[in-house]
This record gives sequence, C-alpha cells and structure tokens, in this order.
Amino acid sequence: MRKVAVIGVGMVKVDHHWKESLRSLFTKAAINALEDAGNPDVEALYVGNMSAGQFNKQENLAPMLADALGLGSKPSLRVEEGCSSGAAALYMALKDVASGMHDFVLVGGVEKMMDTTTSDATFIISTVTDQEYEAFTGLSLAGINAMVMRLYMKKFGVKRESFAKFVVQMHENASKNPYAQFPFKISLDKALNSAPVAEPIHLMDCAPIGDGAAALIICPAEKAKEFTSDQVDIVGAWKANDTFLFHMRKDFLSLKATIEASRNAYDMANITPEDVDVAEVHDSFSIAGILAIEDLGFVRKGEGWMAVEEGLISLDGEIPINPSGGLKARGHPIGATGIYQAAEIVLQLRGDAGKRQVPDARIGLSHNTSGFGTSAIVHVFKAK
Amino acid sequence: MRKVAVIGVGMVKVDHHWKESLRSLFTKAAINALEDAGNPDVEALYVGNMSAGQFNKQENLAPMLADALGLGSKPSLRVEEGCSSGAAALYMALKDVASGMHDFVLVGGVEKMMDTTTSDATFIISTVTDQEYEAFTGLSLAGINAMVMRLYMKKFGVKRESFAKFVVQMHENASKNPYAQFPFKISLDKALNSAPVAEPIHLMDCAPIGDGAAALIICPAEKAKEFTSDQVDIVGAWKANDTFLFHMRKDFLSLKATIEASRNAYDMANITPEDVDVAEVHDSFSIAGILAIEDLGFVRKGEGWMAVEEGLISLDGEIPINPSGGLKARGHPIGATGIYQAAEIVLQLRGDAGKRQVPDARIGLSHNTSGFGTSAIVHVFKAK
Repeated sequence: MRKVAVIGVGMVKVDHHWKESLRSLFTKAAINALEDAGNPDVEALYVGNMSAGQFNKQENLAPMLADALGLGSKPSLRVEEGCSSGAAALYMALKDVASGMHDFVLVGGVEKMMDTTTSDATFIISTVTDQEYEAFTGLSLAGINAMVMRLYMKKFGVKRESFAKFVVQMHENASKNPYAQFPFKISLDKALNSAPVAEPIHLMDCAPIGDGAAALIICPAEKAKEFTSDQVDIVGAWKANDTFLFHMRKDFLSLKATIEASRNAYDMANITPEDVDVAEVHDSFSIAGILAIEDLGFVRKGEGWMAVEEGLISLDGEIPINPSGGLKARGHPIGATGIYQAAEIVLQLRGDAGKRQVPDARIGLSHNTSGFGTSAIVHVFKAK
Repeated sequence: MRKVAVIGVGMVKVDHHWKESLRSLFTKAAINALEDAGNPDVEALYVGNMSAGQFNKQENLAPMLADALGLGSKPSLRVEEGCSSGAAALYMALKDVASGMHDFVLVGGVEKMMDTTTSDATFIISTVTDQEYEAFTGLSLAGINAMVMRLYMKKFGVKRESFAKFVVQMHENASKNPYAQFPFKISLDKALNSAPVAEPIHLMDCAPIGDGAAALIICPAEKAKEFTSDQVDIVGAWKANDTFLFHMRKDFLSLKATIEASRNAYDMANITPEDVDVAEVHDSFSIAGILAIEDLGFVRKGEGWMAVEEGLISLDGEIPINPSGGLKARGHPIGATGIYQAAEIVLQLRGDAGKRQVPDARIGLSHNTSGFGTSAIVHVFKAK
C-alpha cells in the first residue's frame, strides 16, 4: 500500500446559494482544489452526496460533474452513505491511490439543500434512518438526539447549559472562518433560549441545513512534493458500522462505530488519541458533538461536557475541536460535510487556517458519521 | 494487482414483490450468493442502488443492509451511478480485492421500483439525465431513445420490424430463465403493435420497471478454489464517461463511453470482441440493445439490426446476446441490473444456466450504462 497525501483543498462558503446549481457549486470547489494543488492532471473523480435525488431530482451525479469539469471519459463514481457520504468518498478515493490504481484523484462532496422547505429537508434527512421502523413513525434525527441528550443529562447530572456552551464555542470558532455559514458569535443566553425543537434540544443545538461543496486532491505521498511544499499525509483511515436500528443498541450513550473506527485509524497511524492536535468531529447536534469527543477517546465517557466547560476544546485548548465551527456553525451541507472536515484539518496542518489556526498542529483527525452513529469514518492526517 | 474471481452468485426473480421490502429483497439475494459460495466470511459490502431515496424514501443504504445481513461493524458502501449503479458497485469492489484491501467481498445491487406509479417511476428514472437542461423540459429517456431510433432507421434504412425481432429474441431467452420478470415468448405482431410510448418506440421496445436484487461474492483468484470448483475470473474491467448532455454529442448513434470502456476492458483481458462467447448488454430500449452490439465491437456500426435478423445473437448464434432475456424481458430493477448481468455471465461460464445455456461459453462480457450512454462499465469474465 502506498502512502497518500493531500495536495489541494477547495471550499465554497456554506450558505444559501440561490443563484448556484448543484453542478456549479461543486465545480467551484473542485476548481479551487485543483488550483490549490497546482493543477495536476486528475485521473478519477469521487463524489460524496447524500440525496440529490430527493433534494434536486438529480441522480447519476458523478458523470454529470465529471463532464462539467471537463474530465472527458475519466472514471467517476458517487458514493452515498447518508451524512457521512463525504468521508465515504474520501475513504474510497484513498484506496484507489493507496492501491496504485490511480495517482491523482479529485474527491469532493456536495449537497444543495436550501431549495427545499425546512420540513421537507427534515424529512429527507430522516431517510438516513430506518424508514420501515423509525422514520416512518415520524421519529426525526432531532427526536433520536433528544432522547439521547435527556438520558445523558440524567446519567451524568448535566444541565442544558453545558450543551449551550459547546454551541457558543462552535460559533466563536466559526466567527473566524470565511467558509462558515454562520460566522458570528452568539451569547450563552441565545444558545440556551432559542426555540425548542425536541426537548431538551433547541434550535441552537442543531446543525443547520445549507448548500455547500468542498474538494480535495490526493496523490501518492512520493509524488506530492512536485506539487506542494505543504504536503499533508493521510496516515490512518477506517470505517465501521453499528446496529442500524437505534433501539436495538445495548448502550445508547456510546457510539460503537465511532469507537471502532477511531481505534483502528489510530492503530493504522500508530498514534493514540493524546497525539491528536486538532479534530473536526460530527456535531450534527450538540449532544452528538459531546459524545464524539468521548467516543474518539479524547476524554472519558461522561466527561465530554466538562471538556467544554474547562476550555479544553477551544482553539488554544488541549484538544481543539472543530476550529471551522463544526457542523453546528460552519454548516452541514450533508454530503459535503466530510470533505469540509478533511479540508479544514489539512489547512490547520499546513498552518493556513488564518484567525482560527490552532497553534503547532501536526496531527489532525476528521470524524464523520451517518444516521445516529450508524456508521463512522475516521481519517487521521499528519503534516509532512 | 491480484486476479479476482467470482465464487458465488445469488438472485431473486425480478417481479412485483408486494410483500418484500428493499431490505428483505437484498438480503435474500445476498444469502443466496453466500450459500452458493460456501459461506465465506465476507469482509466488506458494496451495494449498487440508483434511487432508494426517491423510490423508497430510504438513504444510508449500506449500513442498513450490512446490519440486516449481520455483518456487524464491517465496512459497507453504496455506489450510485444511475442505471449502471450495479456495475459501478462491482467495479469498486473489484478494486478492493485486486488491490489487496479485502479478500472476500459481497457486492450486490437492489432497486424496489414497483411501489410507485409508472408515471412517477418514469420521472424518477429521468433524473439520471440532466435535470437542468433535459429532464426539466419533460424529455424522458424514452424520448431520447425515440429520437435516436428514428435517426438510426433513417440513416441505415431500417424498419421497426427489425427492432421488434430483437424484442422477440429477448422474450424467447427469458422464457427459459426462472429469474426473469416476463418469462414468456411473444409474437412479432405483439412486439410490433404494442401501445406507442414515444414514436417509433412502443411499449414492447422498453425495459419494464421491476423489483429485484442480485449479489456476487468475489475473492482473490488464488483463494477461490477452496470455495468452488466452478471459479470464474474477472479478467477485464473499465469504466468510461461520455458528454452528460445528449445534445452536445457529435455522433448520436455511437456511444463513446461503451466504445472506450469495452476497448480498455478487452485490452486488459487480452482478448478481442471475437473472443467473447456470451454477453449481457444494456438494452433499456431495443435501440439501445442494437447500439450496444455495435459499440461493443461485435458487429460493425449500422449492422446490429442485421445481426438480430440473421440469428447471430440467439442462444446458439455466433454471438449470443442476453441469454437472461436482457433488461427487456429479464427485467431492469435499475441498481440491481449490472449485478444480474454479471451473475448471468457467471452462471453461463459455469455451465449452470439451464435451458438458456449458451454452448461452450468460456469468455463472457457484461455491459451496463447510465443515462443514454452517459457512462458505461464493461466487465470481462473467463471460466477457469
């Protein structure tokens, strides 16, 4: 297996892009990544996307986007894995380069969600959970997260304020990120007292819907230096699944897929969680962000909320989490999210993250899940 | 790169499966394949599916199906590429095994289309073409194929009877296939005089909608003999794209992606089209079947219809096409079609195809396209 490097990243601001199509959004992100990489001749395209069929009435995405990018007959494939479609595309592309199949590969994610009503979008998002036994009954992802948050609060004696502090931190980070959908700070009071969605979850606990696209260029590590002096290697990658039906799980507060994916990715990278300098984790809801910090091994189970209160996750903390602002404030254009996370980590490890730069970041991690932790994909990155 | 073999195939009859869910259909096909292979311990799952989001309001398919199959935390991914989603899943899975990433991989396809009205299904299928410039205007795939058929008839002086003869042959084959949706013969008169859909295309020129699932077990060729004495190797595989927008093509009668994918697959397999003993080609419409025969290099451009008239494509002809009955009569449960094709070729090369067995088949080919030849994936198989 060959070592793989990222040599280019491209993003568009997560936003309501009224005037852009799914195609033009993706093309812009891809061109940014190509330019950032010094325009190598890419050989294949992987696209992560959750539900262009439902959101945009467009399937067969990969050949469409390959054509828009002028890639001619070069192979292209779309990967779908709900909310982790972006990371899934990277996971596939990585294997192509690691195995020697291709050298220069463009991997991106895109989702255009805002041309849909919020209630339709909420339904579409719920189709990543079990349609026959969960979504069909009207149980949304906010509903599942609300039950888990309630249980967490009861088990560990935590109040809603602790979750609101996580949200405030995410907005603090996003206020320094030009790609963020909501680049402004919010008060604890606002985070705490926004409209209720599914008690104890309020609006500010939820990642927003948004339009976005992000892209990476990857290649064999030994060829990277021809294109960049800021090479970042992908040194660990793993994907694991959990029970699809939420109610069949033995432990509602531990996300097994995250635990297993991260342990294997750490082993592959030959590191421990303590070695990670910066992480982008899947905080689709504030409770999901807290659980991720625990299940990735950064703190012990039940102590994620304390890590927030003690400032460990802030940009200059011991384990800075989501310098981009996370799904919560950078935004969560679903199929693109995993690529936004990877792109942010690459910028951080290159020292190119501007005002939101984490000091001396050498090892970074991205963590993208689908459903309520139905599957998890973890990538570990290392500055060359 | 390691050589890869198919050691198990499983299919369910293409049908209107009122009482089966998408999950149960897929699970049945997968269990059939696992049993056929002698129940190896599979390490990963790939699923081809076009549009469970639109048809079944279910995304995040791969973890759902992995869970249903008891695969625990093992990695699973869904691949979407319109009508060629099945072959795309095989194309990805093949790389995993060829590269040494995994040994035993389950790759399947599934689509449950019949719980939708025909007009809704027609619209959903049209979302594999360009939504902004084609589908949005109301141009269905039947419409595109009708224009091409008209052009073909004019350019090569062909009558509708020639296409009807192709249809009759497909039903003749399907009448011997227990997995076929329409396992009965039809008369030339019926093929010719069915209800018009988009002139000159009539109902019998169109592949039907249907529910179906099929699966394969693949592994490194050197490990195959522990599990089967009927090993079939995949000796060539290629994917190519064409211009996404139909009207931007220079030649409406040649499918560039098919030409390029097959040439590269032949080169990889070190064969010529003449060496192919049996092929399953993408005949979503009778005209598409005729073009495929030409673009795969079995006959010259403009002579596909003659190959049908002269009996070359029949089971005992020079180049037997679609012994299964093809998309036309075996059925076209979209995301599963590419896997049905591959499974049929494997059965043929094993000599297990029963009444529809092609004599002495040693080398077989499957050909799956998306949109109107927007992309094409060709696999070449060889009996060990």
